[in-house]
Amino acid sequence: MFVILVYDVNQKRVAKVLKTARKYLYWVQNSVLEGEITEANFRRLKGELSRIINQDEDSVLFYIFGSMKYSSRELLGIQKGGETNML
Amino acid sequence: MFVILVYDVNQKRVAKVLKTARKYLYWVQNSVLEGEITEANFRRLKGELSRIINQDEDSVLFYIFGSMKYSSRELLGIQKGGETNML
Repeated sequence: MFVILVYDVNQKRVAKVLKTARKYLYWVQNSVLEGEITEANFRRLKGELSRIINQDEDSVLFYIFGSMKYSSRELLGIQKGGETNML
Repeated sequence: MFVILVYDVNQKRVAKVLKTARKYLYWVQNSVLEGEITEANFRRLKGELSRIINQDEDSVLFYIFGSMKYSSRELLGIQKGGETNML
């Protein structure tokens, strides 16, 4: 499956969240990562992030796609990160 | 179509980018908006944002979906914004 991860977490936890997420996904731009991921790795990623974030203050949102057949991407401005060739 | 907008722009332009994007999409969390949008409005939104951002410094990325049939969403932590009932 393909996942887009967006996070909105307290500054003191950003580095740890980013370091963890980058083990599984590509960094796209500030607070956004994406990529293909297996169910097992997705469970691991969620488990690891759940132990890092403050559940009452932080927010990590996953958009999960079984198929990217109906999707595309457009960019205004500069490309900040690498991106998977999903689209 | 359904669009997820993520932006990574210079702090001095965030307010204007957000104000413009909120005319067309729902704010989800820091630097993320989403929602159903018509082709015509999508063109307008891109046009307005292109005139606001610095093309050499800022980045606005749109994920565009013709169908959300194969998608879902998961949240860790708190829900920061409203969200469309797309998923």
